[in-house]
Amino acid sequence: MKVKPRLVKGTRDFLPEQVNKRKYILNTIQTVFKKFGFQEIETPAIELLETLTGKYGEEGDKLLFKILNSGDFLSKADDQHLQEKDSKAITASISEKGLRYDLTVPLARYVVQHQNELNFPFKRFHIGPVWRADRPQKGRYREFFQCDADIIGSTSLLNETELTLILAEAFEALGLSVKIQLNNRKILEGIIETVGVSEQYKEILIAIDKMDKIGEEGVTNELQNLQLTAEQITELFALFSITDLHALANSFKDKSAIGEEGCEEMTSILNKCSKKNVVFAPALARGLDYYTGTIWEVVVNDVAMGTIAAGGRYDNLTEMFGGQNMSGVGISFGIERIYDVLEELNQWPADITTSTKVLIINFGNEGENVGWQLLQSLRNSNIPSELFPDDAKLKKQMSYADKKNIPYVIFIGEEEIKTGKYSLKAMTTGEQNVLGLEELIEVLK
Amino acid sequence: MKVKPRLVKGTRDFLPEQVNKRKYILNTIQTVFKKFGFQEIETPAIELLETLTGKYGEEGDKLLFKILNSGDFLSKADDQHLQEKDSKAITASISEKGLRYDLTVPLARYVVQHQNELNFPFKRFHIGPVWRADRPQKGRYREFFQCDADIIGSTSLLNETELTLILAEAFEALGLSVKIQLNNRKILEGIIETVGVSEQYKEILIAIDKMDKIGEEGVTNELQNLQLTAEQITELFALFSITDLHALANSFKDKSAIGEEGCEEMTSILNKCSKKNVVFAPALARGLDYYTGTIWEVVVNDVAMGTIAAGGRYDNLTEMFGGQNMSGVGISFGIERIYDVLEELNQWPADITTSTKVLIINFGNEGENVGWQLLQSLRNSNIPSELFPDDAKLKKQMSYADKKNIPYVIFIGEEEIKTGKYSLKAMTTGEQNVLGLEELIEVLK
Repeated sequence: MKVKPRLVKGTRDFLPEQVNKRKYILNTIQTVFKKFGFQEIETPAIELLETLTGKYGEEGDKLLFKILNSGDFLSKADDQHLQEKDSKAITASISEKGLRYDLTVPLARYVVQHQNELNFPFKRFHIGPVWRADRPQKGRYREFFQCDADIIGSTSLLNETELTLILAEAFEALGLSVKIQLNNRKILEGIIETVGVSEQYKEILIAIDKMDKIGEEGVTNELQNLQLTAEQITELFALFSITDLHALANSFKDKSAIGEEGCEEMTSILNKCSKKNVVFAPALARGLDYYTGTIWEVVVNDVAMGTIAAGGRYDNLTEMFGGQNMSGVGISFGIERIYDVLEELNQWPADITTSTKVLIINFGNEGENVGWQLLQSLRNSNIPSELFPDDAKLKKQMSYADKKNIPYVIFIGEEEIKTGKYSLKAMTTGEQNVLGLEELIEVLK
Repeated sequence: MKVKPRLVKGTRDFLPEQVNKRKYILNTIQTVFKKFGFQEIETPAIELLETLTGKYGEEGDKLLFKILNSGDFLSKADDQHLQEKDSKAITASISEKGLRYDLTVPLARYVVQHQNELNFPFKRFHIGPVWRADRPQKGRYREFFQCDADIIGSTSLLNETELTLILAEAFEALGLSVKIQLNNRKILEGIIETVGVSEQYKEILIAIDKMDKIGEEGVTNELQNLQLTAEQITELFALFSITDLHALANSFKDKSAIGEEGCEEMTSILNKCSKKNVVFAPALARGLDYYTGTIWEVVVNDVAMGTIAAGGRYDNLTEMFGGQNMSGVGISFGIERIYDVLEELNQWPADITTSTKVLIINFGNEGENVGWQLLQSLRNSNIPSELFPDDAKLKKQMSYADKKNIPYVIFIGEEEIKTGKYSLKAMTTGEQNVLGLEELIEVLK
């Protein structure tokens, strides 16, 4: 049976050029991770549903890809549930595995499971695909890559500074101008406590977090709906606009010890990190994530793309797997968005699409044999090179070189065979030179 | 709810050292692929079941991991099938996606789907996980990596020689002594035709393929069961033992044109490839794979491991997706087995477990500040380095360096702070030197 070749909605094939570009991003970030002493780990794509379920909220649970048990999976299913066609109730009995939803829950499992083999503070990075049964839309995929670095088992603020420097160095290496915004959950708590509305901490946080989307007016509306007085709202906005840490700490004096602590932490981090593009952003909230201390959000200048990297400190990572409570702090690079930004700015290295350096044109017979020998010599000099496998029409062979962005082609005609020289043509300029083997290798190296 | 951290059976976590080792293998092979002009592609882990089903035989279909449809998946299920708890019949209505089983069927889909974007002959490599719902056992995993290189759209035998050289170069780069065995389906066909038992071609192939497992006696038994005469069996074995291509071609004369063709092909490939460890193996059959021409099987010397790489030419790759018939030829490296071999021989590069070059010991206070400045200088010189984030006990910090295989540590005590120098200790020899910044960088570079 012939089937039409199709992809699952929300998944993608990558052409060689796209793979090169993706690898360039990942390698650049990876190089920085390693320079900072992070080590790579891998975990399986498939996890037990008992590991995944309940970690991402009810919405998240719905977005888990679940794998059907093998064999006679219905045998364990409840008859009544089957009769009632109760999909939700039947799931647990016919599926016990799922695809990982992120790299964080697998990290938590990994750290508890391997705690005796790991070296703490454990500085790991992890790059790999994750899966979400989301409705696909522009820029949102069902299979996409995450790229995370975390430090587990150290509460030192040096870790925060390190991660900030990693963000700065990685984006610099990618040639992207970014703003690295930091805040601290303790500062948010301090502001809300200072205004005296701590009972509504969560709701206020959610409202503040929408600033980018609905503006100050929208947030004001939401705060009014939360029964905050005009005075309280004014005070909140005033505090959220103080970017001077000394001044903010003064506002907390005798009103919020946790706020003061947050200011101290933030000061300590920023003092060690004299990058111009690292800024304190007191209104940054990062939604309802599980963060408990410092939080990061990186936005790119010049392109409207939203957050392209983010992170934070969290205190209860390993608890869900019965591990002793270990503090963690980590960042995550939004690989897919970074790709889109670099694409929009066309900010790729010049040779990103080149792999083969030279194609030897195949005219068949003796030329092919000479070409084959030459090919071995070029490769012995570590020059990525090809001999076209068939003596196809010249036009076809040239088009092959062109499409593959191969910068040089070599012609071996009768004259070349006689003299033991080779005609080297540069594809972009059209310049052609007759060279001996040594000169040839020198040019191509 | 706390859950015990567990893995799905047959899947694995990788510790940093293991990831380094795996990456070393993959990078080594990849470097060779690129030198030969192969380009990397990626396809999604999830494919439509209509793409996967029916391509791997009935047994293979059973081993596909199937993904449960999202939402109210039972709504489309047939009532009677549900009532009868007919798992097999119900599957199609509750699951339309699965995890890829290999990288070959996705390649076929990819080539047809993107034929207008690809550059033929299309030389691609693909490295990634595949999934099989197999019974896990030693060395057999449900999630494992494949590493394939294929050339699509060229029947030239130069491609076969290229792939043979890739195998030779990759294993040489990995420091492994291997035997690269080649055969050709046409030679197998020729031998069987010459003996006059072509009607039983498939059955005889299956029997011959078991030589390694059941020996000549076992194969003889199987051939007897196929009603071959003693004479025919003797002739078969005689032909299968001729490793001289010229002599074999003579045996085919006037008896098997296809056999002669196979000998010609094999001669042409081997003539261009003067490696000592590349040998013609006339009894090599590679089971019932879809191969139609040259076949490869690579075994490692010195370790009993079976096949660690294999491949072949196949003629009908794209047909199943309605593409025009394109010939393909490819090889696949058995990454998991290569890992086990290197592990058994302990044949890893010396620095495989090292990532960080130097750890600055943290004694707190001013020492930490000086250490922090030093850290920036080291990293500016591209030396992977760390400052321990807490002023923990010296023993703990030293143990951290030791476990992480960090070759050097730096101490910054009062004396060092006063003189602006640093004590550098080599972890293996215990040798300690007091150095200025420039000397320090020189030693660590």
